[in-house]
Amino acid sequence: MASIKPSKKFEAALHAAETDPGIPKDEAKAQIEELRSDLLKAQYARLAHPKHALLVVIAGIDGSGKGRCISVLNEWMDARHIDTLAFGEPGPKEQGKPFLWRYWQYMPAKGRSAIVFGSWYRPLFQELAEKDPDPEKIYDIAHTIRDFERTLADNGVQVLKLWYHLSKDAQEKRTEKLLKDPDTAWQVNPDDLKVSKKFGKAREAGLLAMSLTHEAHAPWVVIPSADDHVRAICTGQAVLKALRKRVIHHHELLDSTPVDAPEKIVITPPDSVPDPDDDTTPDLPRKPLRPMAPAISLDRLDYTLALKKSDYEDQLVALQGRLARLTRHKRFANLPVVLVFEGQDAAGKGSTIRRITHALDARMFRAIPIAAPTDEEKARPYLWRFWRRLPAPGRIAIFDRSWYGRVLVERVEGFAAPAEWQRAYEEINQFEEEIVAGGAVLLKFWLAVTKDEQLKRFEDRQKSAFKNFKITDEDWRNREKWDSYVQATNDMFQRTSTALCPWHAFPANDKLYARVQVLNTIVTQLEQALGVEA
Amino acid sequence: MASIKPSKKFEAALHAAETDPGIPKDEAKAQIEELRSDLLKAQYARLAHPKHALLVVIAGIDGSGKGRCISVLNEWMDARHIDTLAFGEPGPKEQGKPFLWRYWQYMPAKGRSAIVFGSWYRPLFQELAEKDPDPEKIYDIAHTIRDFERTLADNGVQVLKLWYHLSKDAQEKRTEKLLKDPDTAWQVNPDDLKVSKKFGKAREAGLLAMSLTHEAHAPWVVIPSADDHVRAICTGQAVLKALRKRVIHHHELLDSTPVDAPEKIVITPPDSVPDPDDDTTPDLPRKPLRPMAPAISLDRLDYTLALKKSDYEDQLVALQGRLARLTRHKRFANLPVVLVFEGQDAAGKGSTIRRITHALDARMFRAIPIAAPTDEEKARPYLWRFWRRLPAPGRIAIFDRSWYGRVLVERVEGFAAPAEWQRAYEEINQFEEEIVAGGAVLLKFWLAVTKDEQLKRFEDRQKSAFKNFKITDEDWRNREKWDSYVQATNDMFQRTSTALCPWHAFPANDKLYARVQVLNTIVTQLEQALGVEA
Repeated sequence: MASIKPSKKFEAALHAAETDPGIPKDEAKAQIEELRSDLLKAQYARLAHPKHALLVVIAGIDGSGKGRCISVLNEWMDARHIDTLAFGEPGPKEQGKPFLWRYWQYMPAKGRSAIVFGSWYRPLFQELAEKDPDPEKIYDIAHTIRDFERTLADNGVQVLKLWYHLSKDAQEKRTEKLLKDPDTAWQVNPDDLKVSKKFGKAREAGLLAMSLTHEAHAPWVVIPSADDHVRAICTGQAVLKALRKRVIHHHELLDSTPVDAPEKIVITPPDSVPDPDDDTTPDLPRKPLRPMAPAISLDRLDYTLALKKSDYEDQLVALQGRLARLTRHKRFANLPVVLVFEGQDAAGKGSTIRRITHALDARMFRAIPIAAPTDEEKARPYLWRFWRRLPAPGRIAIFDRSWYGRVLVERVEGFAAPAEWQRAYEEINQFEEEIVAGGAVLLKFWLAVTKDEQLKRFEDRQKSAFKNFKITDEDWRNREKWDSYVQATNDMFQRTSTALCPWHAFPANDKLYARVQVLNTIVTQLEQALGVEA
Repeated sequence: MASIKPSKKFEAALHAAETDPGIPKDEAKAQIEELRSDLLKAQYARLAHPKHALLVVIAGIDGSGKGRCISVLNEWMDARHIDTLAFGEPGPKEQGKPFLWRYWQYMPAKGRSAIVFGSWYRPLFQELAEKDPDPEKIYDIAHTIRDFERTLADNGVQVLKLWYHLSKDAQEKRTEKLLKDPDTAWQVNPDDLKVSKKFGKAREAGLLAMSLTHEAHAPWVVIPSADDHVRAICTGQAVLKALRKRVIHHHELLDSTPVDAPEKIVITPPDSVPDPDDDTTPDLPRKPLRPMAPAISLDRLDYTLALKKSDYEDQLVALQGRLARLTRHKRFANLPVVLVFEGQDAAGKGSTIRRITHALDARMFRAIPIAAPTDEEKARPYLWRFWRRLPAPGRIAIFDRSWYGRVLVERVEGFAAPAEWQRAYEEINQFEEEIVAGGAVLLKFWLAVTKDEQLKRFEDRQKSAFKNFKITDEDWRNREKWDSYVQATNDMFQRTSTALCPWHAFPANDKLYARVQVLNTIVTQLEQALGVEA
């Protein structure tokens, strides 16, 4: 593959690992004793101030004993705060879900660590091991991985990636020794035997994957694996170094919490491991600019648009009928649908959603009101609670408010720092691209009312015996910040109304008009997705 | 079916509903206005003091418009606090999971309400609609349902069950009318047409199901459904009455919180609905006594049992080899396995678990340390957090501490009231029976150390640089209550060591001996479950 250059550092690291370094037993014992104590201290320091989770991605040559790191880390650290996440080939649960969905599902809480097997690197290794790898596809996968790891790093999830490596000879010897004894033969994966023939291919794939995706906030470390002690010590050292980091991304401010122990462990063998803090990120060809949808602005909507009640009723029934028939279409069973509803307070989101669900079988939809996050949600990146609620094929998830809270209420109220909400536009666009790439239809609706109309509705609600629960002091406080919300909304349109996932903003001073527009959009988009004529 | 007697009250209620009562439009409007306001107040009173969740089970004659209750309740109440849970036929997610698993998964948090379609009554209705129903099977299902609903009621989840009913004529007319218009024809389930022929069968099934499972803490209410207004009002009234209840189970003390509005809604039509507070629970034939395993007591274990290091190493490797081969057996892919580890502090649970996981593919197991519940868990019955972690087929869930905390630490420390931990024995036995009925192997281990041995280990831990994290002030405090824990443990053995799920209690003063015993038990039990010779 001429076009992808292997990094010289990683070539050197693999070469060093292939010298199959060992270590005298006494020296190993002394190092391990110190390392265990340091690992525990570092783990507890994190748990005491849970700012970050740590994902340790395990990869490497088959037959290198990489599975042993589970025992090592669980024995050396407090196992109660370490998860083992091992992903096989995608199963029925992953059907119709975005590629990254499974990794989001099991995101550990801040303070915790997880060991990840079968990670998001799987498709990259697979493509790199192809007979004739497609550089474009490879860059594409590398971009997805780097975007994902950047989003994690920026949102409190640190990633450390370990490549277990040894010489071809050592690999063969290790396998033979295990196979000889029936009680240890099970440790040899049947694939290992085949893979031994493919040593060169696997080495090349690892080298290029590391070269393409090594970043200061998500570094690769090569672990020499021929010797049990060296493998264990290098694993422990890499994890220790990661746990001691107080900054996992250059966007973040330095945390001045003093590190509680000096780094005095000698890397074994010396010089084999590139500095994980090395900030030189490999260049990938730039991603093409994201095509955007035509501009939207709240002040350019026509708020006089309205519908006569009799026209509304005819159109509503007809649209509900079409929607009902579409969702009973054979091909609908394969289609996940995500509907997002945003809009000013009292714009009519709830009543619009009910007009939709009325046409649906109850098994088919889930209405998801977004309120304050639970503590399980607060302990994870803000997108986690939306990832965990993505619908299965044939199901409709209706979000009543959504991930856009990050750039609306959290921005206006100052719950998110400027750096956080500013980078959220890109994180959200990538999230939505993942959803669509996973095969879903995603539609985003903004119901827009004018400031006068909102006041009228607030006052009506306060007068109504069974609507006054809908109006709180908070609504009035939000209303005082009307202009800030308009600014945040228009910025949101500008940054997130992409050609792939455009915003559908409808004036809703007349509720009937807005409801019909929303239903019509859903129906026509589903007809298109299912290839059904109106 | 001669042996199951229909209740006269429910016969009368069905008969009343079959008069297809209507209501003048003006009167309906007035009642609805008052009802909406009362429902909202009751809903908010609950949210302000979230003691209970409410599950509204929807059942009834097909074509009775029972699906409309989603719109009614979501429109009349604050839809943000109501979930719609609709279950179809079990899918791949439910494979190898206990029957009740799916209902536990979606348990709403305290304060919230849920509308449940396709509930746990499905198999009861199915069996009752059989040509030649099997009374024994029916009683069995009825027991499972009543046990489940009692556990829910006792743990903060209220159940209200609605049977939508109308006359055969009205059912036919309603169906015809909807079918005439292509825009409303979708509201007619294809099954409805067939079901119309089976009106008598469905009526009989409903009548008997209600007769068998009506309880004061989980009442059935018949909803006359021919008229849209009557159906909506009766639904609202039944829900209102449930929301206003301050006591959902007779075991609980009366809560003296004043009800904030008098009950002044007139039931429409009068006398059609049996009093849901009617406490006469139908008699079912008694369940056979649960066979128990031989008695266990901590003081009768032989703590001198030990293993030589060389014997240990041979046996350990051999057992790990057998375990590894078993879990790679073809039939293992269909077997969910649940391992429970309990024992005194420092008894060696962690190191024993590592000897097991070492023999397992990382994709195969999940180690689940049980610590303090999260707020999502606190808002639900205490068993929920274990239900949500049950393993899929071919997977092993290893609980490091478990649901037995309810009758151990929660009892001794007073976190659970006496009534709570006392009824937990039965709840736990039923939970485990469900797990086993779902096809899983469930093994419970108690690692037992003597008070002296524990002291020695505590002291060793405090001296060790990398073990002192394992010893906290709490451990020393627990140790002071040694005798209370012994009492709680022995009671636990007595009440929960059933023939189906016996406790395996091993003396663990010698860790090597205990580890080999545990591994040997797992291996032999799995061999038996898989039908494999040692």
